Amino acid sequence: MNKLLLFALAGGLACSTPAAAQSKEKLDGAALAKIRDEGMNRSKVMETAFYLTDVSGPRLANSEGLKRANEWTKKQLTQYGLVNANIEAWGDFGRGWDVDKSYVAMTAPYYHSMIGFPKAWTPSTPGPLRLPVVVMKTPTTEADLDQYKGKLRGKIVVMSVPTPPKPSAEPDLKRYTDEELSKMADPTAARPASNMPDAAAMATRRAQMALRTKMSELMMSEGAAAVLSARGGIYGTFNTTNGAPYAADATPVLPEVEMAPEDQLRLIRLVEAGVPVEVELETKTRFQTQDLKGYNVVAEIPGTDRKLKSEVVMLGGHLDSWHAATGATDNAAGCAVMMEAVRILKTTGLKPRRTIRIALWGEEEQGLHGSRNYVKNHFADPATMKLLPDHEKLAAYFNLDNGGGKIRGIYAQGNEAVAPIFAEWLKPFADLGATTVTLRNTGSTDHIAFDAVGLPGFQFIQDGLDYFPTTHHTNQDTYDRLIADDLKQASVVVASFVYDAAMRDQKLPRKPLPAPAKAQ
Amino acid sequence: MNKLLLFALAGGLACSTPAAAQSKEKLDGAALAKIRDEGMNRSKVMETAFYLTDVSGPRLANSEGLKRANEWTKKQLTQYGLVNANIEAWGDFGRGWDVDKSYVAMTAPYYHSMIGFPKAWTPSTPGPLRLPVVVMKTPTTEADLDQYKGKLRGKIVVMSVPTPPKPSAEPDLKRYTDEELSKMADPTAARPASNMPDAAAMATRRAQMALRTKMSELMMSEGAAAVLSARGGIYGTFNTTNGAPYAADATPVLPEVEMAPEDQLRLIRLVEAGVPVEVELETKTRFQTQDLKGYNVVAEIPGTDRKLKSEVVMLGGHLDSWHAATGATDNAAGCAVMMEAVRILKTTGLKPRRTIRIALWGEEEQGLHGSRNYVKNHFADPATMKLLPDHEKLAAYFNLDNGGGKIRGIYAQGNEAVAPIFAEWLKPFADLGATTVTLRNTGSTDHIAFDAVGLPGFQFIQDGLDYFPTTHHTNQDTYDRLIADDLKQASVVVASFVYDAAMRDQKLPRKPLPAPAKAQ
Repeated sequence: MNKLLLFALAGGLACSTPAAAQSKEKLDGAALAKIRDEGMNRSKVMETAFYLTDVSGPRLANSEGLKRANEWTKKQLTQYGLVNANIEAWGDFGRGWDVDKSYVAMTAPYYHSMIGFPKAWTPSTPGPLRLPVVVMKTPTTEADLDQYKGKLRGKIVVMSVPTPPKPSAEPDLKRYTDEELSKMADPTAARPASNMPDAAAMATRRAQMALRTKMSELMMSEGAAAVLSARGGIYGTFNTTNGAPYAADATPVLPEVEMAPEDQLRLIRLVEAGVPVEVELETKTRFQTQDLKGYNVVAEIPGTDRKLKSEVVMLGGHLDSWHAATGATDNAAGCAVMMEAVRILKTTGLKPRRTIRIALWGEEEQGLHGSRNYVKNHFADPATMKLLPDHEKLAAYFNLDNGGGKIRGIYAQGNEAVAPIFAEWLKPFADLGATTVTLRNTGSTDHIAFDAVGLPGFQFIQDGLDYFPTTHHTNQDTYDRLIADDLKQASVVVASFVYDAAMRDQKLPRKPLPAPAKAQ
Repeated sequence: MNKLLLFALAGGLACSTPAAAQSKEKLDGAALAKIRDEGMNRSKVMETAFYLTDVSGPRLANSEGLKRANEWTKKQLTQYGLVNANIEAWGDFGRGWDVDKSYVAMTAPYYHSMIGFPKAWTPSTPGPLRLPVVVMKTPTTEADLDQYKGKLRGKIVVMSVPTPPKPSAEPDLKRYTDEELSKMADPTAARPASNMPDAAAMATRRAQMALRTKMSELMMSEGAAAVLSARGGIYGTFNTTNGAPYAADATPVLPEVEMAPEDQLRLIRLVEAGVPVEVELETKTRFQTQDLKGYNVVAEIPGTDRKLKSEVVMLGGHLDSWHAATGATDNAAGCAVMMEAVRILKTTGLKPRRTIRIALWGEEEQGLHGSRNYVKNHFADPATMKLLPDHEKLAAYFNLDNGGGKIRGIYAQGNEAVAPIFAEWLKPFADLGATTVTLRNTGSTDHIAFDAVGLPGFQFIQDGLDYFPTTHHTNQDTYDRLIADDLKQASVVVASFVYDAAMRDQKLPRKPLPAPAKAQ
């Protein structure tokens, strides 16, 4: 899940009552029973998750790990019997980047090995450094930077920690209560406040970004050696992100390591008490500029109905992850479930009328690049809303990217006509806890690329488990977080929804086409 | 708190009703108000905790960090105005050991920096190693070891993980509920089951220890290069302990690193799936054999009553810690509170009738060595129960070593006569949440050394916070875990109890003398 976009869509559209019309969905009970039996009793989803996480490794956009995962998934989908498996370039992305070494420790006043990892797209240190540190408070004005002039040369800059680590008031694993689900299902219930920033907040954010650039320039021009920073996390878990743009022509920055807040705070407390502090730091990172393209992996189960097989039901999730862990819940889980869903559909020998196409997206974490460009290349450009011929052929797109939790329902994304259909489709899964249709929007991931051009793209509601605050974009998003029963359940629900959509006489109803974004 | 002993005393003695006799404790309200004002409004406890943790560093038995802490506390107690401050040798302990470097990463199939730290008293690697790994299952019989013969040479041995990391079903911070406290106070309430192992369990443990020695011998004789092991923890937190004896003549072992379970499990999963795994490992550890003694830090506030000043009220906690963090909750918190208590008593200018003596114990984590030997040197040897002259002079000993939580009451340690006295002494602190006297025993720390020779030694009841399972003996027991309000409250309660004990006409009542341990 991409956090940058989280704010943009959480607010959703205005309240409205779902269509009261009774849906008359014809469900194939025998087929659904087959899907359920295969998915619950002969699941491969954990094995798939293992290959995506442990074997592929971290899957940062355009990294070697993502390449390994692309190649493995293409091969594996072909082995499942899917056709047209392809690692399809979606366009130009930017530099590849991988880590070959990361070591950071305090060496004075005594030795303490610290927990940290290079921020994505930051350069290597020039060999091992062993240098005194200087603490820099996050500036609020450009004038705040002046005090550091003349003080940074040959130093490791330790940035202040915005918020100290805070123990959670909740258990690690969270699941939706019936009450919470009822509230989501009730179109008259109050919605969570929109996180959409207002103009003032946007201006503040731009100012902060500009200041951050000035700060970076100052560190470079003053000859600082490297930067340690900490954004969030607790007890050995830390949040991770990029420390430089991925663009091939990005302005150079210093080596920067993202730290466990406790380790960063110890350095700061010691410096502030007047204790001389020395840090040893070595990072080896490697840029790749031979291939700047981004890729999605796609593969198909061909439809069998003469009239409908040119229509497509898509399912997908993003295969890329952040770099300090193996992106198990963000989003190997979603990809493993989607791969398992098509495996189940192939293995059971069911004959979908429409073509089913799985897409494992690249470069989601940098702005849904893989899915947005796929949509632009195949269906429509939201800027112009000039529709390509395939736009009318897409029956539905289903996405999974809210961690490793089981499915509790689906976001209808403001599509009132589809809500009663989904309610019918969920009925067979009440005993598995998947019951809820909400009209609410959810954002921050790849179904938004489809929704943005008026295509019926949906994301499932999942139990949160330890996604927030523990695994999402942290160094602790590893295979160990995955719960087999949750992923099996999700695979069965997704396979069934995809099958239902592939068999239905009509494509899923759509919302009105949006206006071109350019004109808005 | 020393876990080895935890089981031994949790069961406690048989149920009994506290003496119903009304205590007529004369409390000096004006003095207690002064103590409270100083402790709540001009506290230095967090500053003290900072020096004990961040500035001293990890304080493993006979390490440089513990030496720094010994020296700082002696100096600081003298600055507070205490007298006879002394770093007092308690006897022979064993080797000093410090860490100068710790680096562990997976380098194939891809790079992954791992979280780990050398087990205490393990040797250095011979420079940086970069070697394939072999997974070894914890043996249950000696025959299980045979399969590894011929397979270990030049390998890094990755031990299996006894239990996978398990998310907690509770919030990070726990506090006692009123109901839990009532149950502790009720002598008729069911007690927690004793953890005291029975003969069969003890035999199993001995057999496991013997097997562990065989395993270690096998690894050495087969030429394995190093060991990675993981015992517990989750999300970047891991448990830590020693990997070799501290005795100067201990049998050599391999370098061994204690790992975050997730990192260890990834290695194991990859190896078991047939993926070649390579690990880079470098540890630099340093033994010190010049001074094998162990030490306690003691200092006094002299009594002012001609007749009573030869009697002593003691308070203390252990200053040593495990080595992968700075032992903030185990037990810098307890020491900071005890130091703050004597600071408060000196600063307020109160004139205690009896002498007050603070003791900051060394080598608690290896078996309460500091306190046990202090008691043996000054009061009595539990083996013979021959009493030294000072045995009758000790009015009370108060200990604090259950994490960083505020005080909720006190364990009367089966001393029925003292329970109503403590109940009176707690009354002024009801508004601060310290209300409960329980007859139950608690063990695992230094008051046991006093209790073992019939001296009135007590430990306070404290809110658990995140002590179990997160901070106790882990790499995450850092200053960040300490909560100023909790430590201020504890300082005030302790200072008041110590003052009450120093002013009381009689020494605190004692339990009957135990029989010599030798004869038992």
